[in-house]
This record gives sequence, structure tokens and C-alpha cells, in this order.
Amino acid sequence: MIKLLTEMLSIPSPTFHEQELTAFIKKFAEDNFPQPEIREFKDCLIIELGKENTHLPHITMVGHSDVVPQWFKPYIEDDKLYGAGGSDMLAAEAAFFRITADNHEDILKRARISIVIYSREEGTKMEDNGLYDLIGEYPDFFKSIDLAIVGEPTDNTIQIGCCGSLHARVVSTGMACHSARPWNGENAFYKALPFISAMAEIEPVKHEVFGCDFFDVLSITEESCTPGRTSIPGRWEANVNFRYAPVRTPQEAEDYVLNFVNDLKVDGLEINIKDNSPSGTVHESPLFARACDILAFPVQAKQAWTDVAQLSAMGVPCFNFGPGLTAQAHKDNEYCSISLIEDYGKQLKLLLTTI
Amino acid sequence: MIKLLTEMLSIPSPTFHEQELTAFIKKFAEDNFPQPEIREFKDCLIIELGKENTHLPHITMVGHSDVVPQWFKPYIEDDKLYGAGGSDMLAAEAAFFRITADNHEDILKRARISIVIYSREEGTKMEDNGLYDLIGEYPDFFKSIDLAIVGEPTDNTIQIGCCGSLHARVVSTGMACHSARPWNGENAFYKALPFISAMAEIEPVKHEVFGCDFFDVLSITEESCTPGRTSIPGRWEANVNFRYAPVRTPQEAEDYVLNFVNDLKVDGLEINIKDNSPSGTVHESPLFARACDILAFPVQAKQAWTDVAQLSAMGVPCFNFGPGLTAQAHKDNEYCSISLIEDYGKQLKLLLTTI
Repeated sequence: MIKLLTEMLSIPSPTFHEQELTAFIKKFAEDNFPQPEIREFKDCLIIELGKENTHLPHITMVGHSDVVPQWFKPYIEDDKLYGAGGSDMLAAEAAFFRITADNHEDILKRARISIVIYSREEGTKMEDNGLYDLIGEYPDFFKSIDLAIVGEPTDNTIQIGCCGSLHARVVSTGMACHSARPWNGENAFYKALPFISAMAEIEPVKHEVFGCDFFDVLSITEESCTPGRTSIPGRWEANVNFRYAPVRTPQEAEDYVLNFVNDLKVDGLEINIKDNSPSGTVHESPLFARACDILAFPVQAKQAWTDVAQLSAMGVPCFNFGPGLTAQAHKDNEYCSISLIEDYGKQLKLLLTTI
Repeated sequence: MIKLLTEMLSIPSPTFHEQELTAFIKKFAEDNFPQPEIREFKDCLIIELGKENTHLPHITMVGHSDVVPQWFKPYIEDDKLYGAGGSDMLAAEAAFFRITADNHEDILKRARISIVIYSREEGTKMEDNGLYDLIGEYPDFFKSIDLAIVGEPTDNTIQIGCCGSLHARVVSTGMACHSARPWNGENAFYKALPFISAMAEIEPVKHEVFGCDFFDVLSITEESCTPGRTSIPGRWEANVNFRYAPVRTPQEAEDYVLNFVNDLKVDGLEINIKDNSPSGTVHESPLFARACDILAFPVQAKQAWTDVAQLSAMGVPCFNFGPGLTAQAHKDNEYCSISLIEDYGKQLKLLLTTI
């Protein structure tokens, strides 16, 4: 597993340039899986095994192939395997392939198996994301999934659902003037103060879903006024980010934010929704519950947005479960933990061979 | 006067490219003044007439040769002469030269006359300003001045003194984190709120100097937090501009701002002075008072920073007095008022021939 991961980490795979790693993975499946059915679309792969066993549940393992840090040659120090994208999230994918290759006979007695590897996940809009492309091209495949494991880094915990993420633009309009004579204008930044103060007082709101705690959080994440050091600013703009628990629809989230801001009735303040990625609802099912039981790892809320949201929207029961270290994600000198990956492999094998 | 101004406006003269207009002005002085003594230094001119009459007061007229708007061909519509830099401040300079050329015999019975035309005034630091260069090169000339008229646009009012202008950087430090989990960090922008609120509550403070009202004003003119729409900002920075009446020294102004901010004791907030242009103190003198009496225009405070400050620092009694329209300064389609310029010319002639 560590050998396979090291080979994967040796191939640079920045967003939009996943072709070489995708080809390597495809070749690995062709060489190591029994009669895999492979579909390739826009640098993404769907690899299916035992598709004919329609009486067995269909379990899919999902991961993206692009990584954030600049590529560097992988190396090992004690328990740490350094490499760009090791934690986020090639370690999970190495486990998907190694465990499946080594145990396919036992696994295929219990389940139909597929692995989805997709491109363009990091920093892209949902519409530019490879999983979005695959769902659009092969909706029936996704509808046939009974349980999906998304290998995003979770430090070997099971993280269910995911928060939605809404961004809105808030603009305060005043009137610019020379800073020597502020009475000729109106400071747009100062005018926004009742809004800013109200935002600063917001506390996270807890929601319990499937026994886990999700939080609604609403924050100003970016803001600035018109530049010009000798002018009273005539305009102030902020980005408001609402992370919402999987108990709200996107429309409910929009209404919540718009009402919060508009109810303040701040003079000269306007709000517009910029974009909104839905939360990942938790689809409970007996298979989902059994999987959680088999895995000897704690179940937590995914207090972030992941592609679990796209799968949830297709009605797929799924969770995030990966050996990557969340704290290492996007770090320049990213590493992952060899012992965590080995534990993960054991648990994944247990899950796939006993479910 | 209008003809000369139109000729001047026909020559593009953006900051750092004043050479052609300077050459035109120099030639005008050579052709129209009796035995002028001309010094040229870094695209600046000092033109002296009647220097030998040391028993007469030395009156200087001062103006900068650079203009802000993009050049366009000057044209007249009714009372308006359109042209880049007409109001700020070539109209005053056209009057300086035309009135001196036409009345030098009478004028030189009453005073020694000089005209200072300098480059690089608009948007530059004081150290890059042509007047700063001239003062450094010819300090004795400036010390010999008994009264200086700075032709900055004042709508034909007499504006005395000028405010100082201090800029400080205020930084609030928090801790960045992912916006889905704000409890892992500290929002630097929210932390600065007690400071921002205190700033927003400040009212202008009036000071009466030489019978005119100056105001201390302290404002946030620029501000922003670390960009990143999915991050809680770890740093917030603002520019604070203090315009202070000519009753404070630069050191007193710094102390005032530092004390104001530090007394708030806002956690994680730091302030540093960036730069500080002193106010223009009013040096009263009998000649200064007589000049104000002769001119039939109201005397007001100059609620802004001008190069009067540099002359004041040399101990020169001086005031701003120009026919340009303050509201037209720096406008794209700048114009000046022909009737105001003609009134100005009459008053300037009266002043120089009767003082």
C-alpha cells in the first residue's frame, strides 16, 4: 500500500493536469483487477468489478486525483510519508486499489465494487469539478450506488454529511469626499458598523444529525473599502460566508442570510447571494448503519463542504472516511501517517469483506 | 490673460513631464519681463525682477506646473474655459505672468517681485516635490521672501494656513482558520471593532486661527482584511488619516493619534505612524495683514494640505489665493471660470501696485 502510494506521489498531479496520474491508475486497475469495466471521461475514471452480481449491494469508493501543493519527490521519515497530496487524498486511493487488488475474491462475494477517481476538485467551482461531469454523464451509475465512501482526509474517523456553503456580497454605499473635509461625504465603512457588529456577535448554532453535531456559522471572511488614503470611502464591500448544517435546503439557507441582513435595516446596505453549494444530507440506510458499525472508528460530523454533497443530492448514502491528516491538507510540505494508512487498509478490508 | 492661459493649457504637462510647459513659461518671462533673473533647477523656475531694490518688500507668487487630468485641447463654452489643469492651477499662473508683464513698471515701484514655478506637486511625496528641491537648493532665496501668494484654487477667496496631514497604519492581529470552523481561530476584523466604533464616533474639532476656523479630523480612509473567502481573516489593516489644524506641531499630532488609539487598549491592535506633513502655520506680519485688507475677497481657513506648509516652515508669511475652482480640481473635464480669472487679475494688479 505504501509502495503504491509512493509511486502515485511520484507523479505530479496539479488541478487540470491529472492525465498522467489517471493513466497510471487505469493501468494499475487493468493489471491487477479481474476483468474490470473501465469508463474514462474528461480525465475521470469509473472502474467496476462484479457488476453482474446485481443481488449484492453496490459499494463505491470515491476520490479526486488532483493535489494542491507543488510537487516534490516523496520521501519517508519515521512514520511520515512526505509527498504532495498524500493526505489529501492519494493515501485513501492507494488503499482503495491495494485492498481491492489483494482481496477481490473475498470482496466480490459480498458486494459489487466500483472506484471513482475524478479530476479538478481543488479550488474549482462545482460546475468545473470532475465528479460533477461524471454525474452528468452517467447518472444511472450513480443512482445504482448503495453506499459511497469518499476518501477525503478525516484522520481515520468517519465523517458524515457535510455543511453547505453560501457566499454573499454585502455592499455599503456612502459618498466619497476628501479626507480633510469629511462633512462633504459619508463614510460607507462607518455606515456598515451596525451590520458588522451584529455579525461579530453571532454564535455558532448547533444541529444534531445522525447523532453528530453540525454547526451553522455565518462570518465576514473578506472586506475592504474603496482604496485612496486621502479619501473618505464611498463604498465598502464584504464577503459573507454561511456554512450551514445539513438540515437546511439551499433556499432556506439563502432566506436565512437575506433575512438576517435585511432585518437589521442598515441604511445604504445591500446584500446579494453570489453562490451556494448545498449541504450533504445524511441518507441513513441499513447498509450505511452496518458499515459504521463494522468500522472501529468514531463517527463525527463533517464540518466543511465536500463532494459528499453531490452524492447526497443523488440520494446516495455516503460518508467521508480517509487516512489523510486534515491538518496536513494543502500544506506545502504535506505528509501522511504510514501507521494511519495501514490501520485504514485493515479496516477497509474488514468492511469490504464482511459487509 | 485668457489667451496666455489657453496657450499654457495647449501644452500637456502631467507630473514628471513638465519640461515643455516650463520652457514655454521661461520663454514668456524672457520675452516679456525687463531683465529677469532666471534660475532653473530640476524642471523648476525662480524668476526675479527688481532684485536690486532691497529696500522694497519681496513678494513671491508660487505655483506648480503639473496637472492631474489627461490632456485635452482647451476650448471655451460661455464663461467656462475647459482645459486640463486650468483650475488647478494654471489659471493663477497665467495671471501672475500677464499682470506682471503688463504692469511691471508700477509694480516694481512697490515691491521686488519673484515667481516660483515648480514641478511634481500632484500625488508625490513631499520629498519628491519640486518646491522641496528648490528650498533645499536656494534656502536664502526663500528666507528673503516677505510675502508669498500660492495660487492653488481657492475660488478667489484668500485661504490662510493649511492643515497638517498624518497617515498611520493600524493593524489588528487575530488567527486565520477555515471559515467552516471559526472556533479554531480569531477574526482579526471583529477584534478591531472597538477601535472602528471609536473612530466612527469622532467629531471634527474646531480651532480658530487668525480669525478662521480650522478643524482636526481623524478618519479611517482605507481598510481591508486578509483576502480568502473561505478563511476567517487573521489580519486586518487600516490607514488612519489625521488632518490637523495649524495649532499642533507634527510631534503633537503624532502623540495625539498614538494616545487616542493606545488609550482604547484594544487587544491585538497596533499602530505605527507612516508619514506626517506638517501644517502650515500662519505667520502674521504687517505686510500680510495689508495684503489681506487690499484684496476684496473673504479670508478663510485652508482645510487641506498645500505647499503653504513648506513655505511656512521657512518662516514665510503666505496664503493660498487662486482663481481656480476647488470643485474642478482633478476632474477629468476640468474647467475654470473666465470671469473669476479676470476678477483675480484685477485684484492681483491692485495688490501688487498699491501694497
